[in-house]
Amino acid sequence: MSGAGFLAVDSGGSGLRVVVGTAVGDGSGPPGPRGRRVSGEPVRTGPRGIDPGHLLGQLLPMARSLAEETGVARLDTVVVGAAGLATLGDALRAELPGALARELGVRTVALAADAVTAYVGALGPRAGAVVAAGTGLIAVGTDLSRWRRADGWGHLLGDCGSGAWIGRAGLEAALRAHDGREGGSAPLLARAEECFGPAEGLPGRVYPRSDRPAVLASFAPEVAACAADDPVAARILRSAARHMADSAAAVCPAGGEPRVAVTGGLLRMGDPLLVPLGEELARRLPQARRTSAEGDPLDGSVRLATDLATGSLTLPSDERMLWVTSLPSG
Amino acid sequence: MSGAGFLAVDSGGSGLRVVVGTAVGDGSGPPGPRGRRVSGEPVRTGPRGIDPGHLLGQLLPMARSLAEETGVARLDTVVVGAAGLATLGDALRAELPGALARELGVRTVALAADAVTAYVGALGPRAGAVVAAGTGLIAVGTDLSRWRRADGWGHLLGDCGSGAWIGRAGLEAALRAHDGREGGSAPLLARAEECFGPAEGLPGRVYPRSDRPAVLASFAPEVAACAADDPVAARILRSAARHMADSAAAVCPAGGEPRVAVTGGLLRMGDPLLVPLGEELARRLPQARRTSAEGDPLDGSVRLATDLATGSLTLPSDERMLWVTSLPSG
Repeated sequence: MSGAGFLAVDSGGSGLRVVVGTAVGDGSGPPGPRGRRVSGEPVRTGPRGIDPGHLLGQLLPMARSLAEETGVARLDTVVVGAAGLATLGDALRAELPGALARELGVRTVALAADAVTAYVGALGPRAGAVVAAGTGLIAVGTDLSRWRRADGWGHLLGDCGSGAWIGRAGLEAALRAHDGREGGSAPLLARAEECFGPAEGLPGRVYPRSDRPAVLASFAPEVAACAADDPVAARILRSAARHMADSAAAVCPAGGEPRVAVTGGLLRMGDPLLVPLGEELARRLPQARRTSAEGDPLDGSVRLATDLATGSLTLPSDERMLWVTSLPSG
Repeated sequence: MSGAGFLAVDSGGSGLRVVVGTAVGDGSGPPGPRGRRVSGEPVRTGPRGIDPGHLLGQLLPMARSLAEETGVARLDTVVVGAAGLATLGDALRAELPGALARELGVRTVALAADAVTAYVGALGPRAGAVVAAGTGLIAVGTDLSRWRRADGWGHLLGDCGSGAWIGRAGLEAALRAHDGREGGSAPLLARAEECFGPAEGLPGRVYPRSDRPAVLASFAPEVAACAADDPVAARILRSAARHMADSAAAVCPAGGEPRVAVTGGLLRMGDPLLVPLGEELARRLPQARRTSAEGDPLDGSVRLATDLATGSLTLPSDERMLWVTSLPSG
């Protein structure tokens, strides 16, 4: 049995996704992922960040049964990519490695911000910048000697150009039209009233909700739908594209041949956003080659695990972005 | 005893302010306010808006003891100016008039949005526009035949140019500097870290709070303090001034000789805001005469009560702005 077995995890808002595999081939098969499992239950976060007990309670049974099914007897390397690790991961750092060593005999544990697994999934271990844009927005880049991040500050302090940002700007333009203020859009007002009912009731539909960013982001596709005929909507999407390029430019290496990719649900907005986005990225990052994402955050987690297991990780470590720890053998 | 006794109320975020007086002179004194009382307990709001029971529980004892002290035996007219009446006042309209008739023998009750009492306090019963700007922002105007309002949609959907808006824009500029994004301000970043600690901790200082708009607005004075030397801060205040002028222009009568006034805590920002505000108002409203506010919302409530009691109210009624009801004599 090789010592190259790995467990790669992506923990996000829709639950836990787990892959077991080996980093080198052995008698039972070639290198690579061997089995995959999904739990639809998102890991709880509390005041200390992601709840290590809740994560382990789901992860350990999934890992054990996958290891048994796939014949990967020992999981030496574990990589956990998790939403919010950058600001919320202290409990995880304190408790997860020891528990994984005790329960599974793990030797190397890496915790990665979801923006880092998105980066590695999109570009692999190459220099460049990745903008992950959905309800929120964060950009991550590296020149292979250190990580940089930009934005990701949430819907009140930043996430400029995100789905929540676009939707909020669209609703503001709708209410400007309602009031007769400058900068209003009658088409966006009509869409807003179709989606949320009479304008007077809009505050009551937004403020009492605990998922306000998602409510705002739900209006972003309506802004895209209006952009062909409405200059106000088109201007909002152009500004969003400019903000996304600002974030990419802040993290992208200046030299070399960096790649730049955009990932996440906001790509579904289609041409009304993607055409100005392509133009703004080309203008701000003439040195970078625009590419499509090769894979998703779980693919990034698998790639990190494979490189760690074979001692070939070339990406930089960093307490808040990609934190790697080796454990004494038990 | 005259039948011109009145009770004028201003119910706001810092509590209840109450005046008892008479609209015409009598044996015991000249017309006008005779006594005043303040309760530091803000009236509760629930899902049906302002809680009528909680308001009456405070108001009735204050009114009775003021009436006794001042010799105003019968309170025929009551005006209640209340925050959020425009969108939150259904319970108040349903229950307050009957209760005041039963308990105090009141004959005429008016409910006014706080923006209307601010208007009347500032301009009296004249045509024009008033921008009430504090943590939030709303503009109210009238040509004396109908009321118009603009903005007041809250910190996510509008309140453009308000304290929360300025503070939010300032914190965004601070974090842009932190990330190395375009549009950042190093002086605002330094101020933000003085106020809230290291930038990384800012989301944790803002999002868990239930008074997020007030937290954002607390940073607005720092933006004003930076504006003399920092072009980013100056640009934020210029944009705020433009938004305030947009709202004023949307509600100000086009003809006649309208007056325009700005009221509220945002005036304390001083010249860094007031100079561009004067320029933007002059540009957008060349027909309007800029004036200082004559009085505050409680003065507006007193003026409405006096005019109602003497049958000389010239301002328009409107279900959501200034709602007047007469009760059968008991």
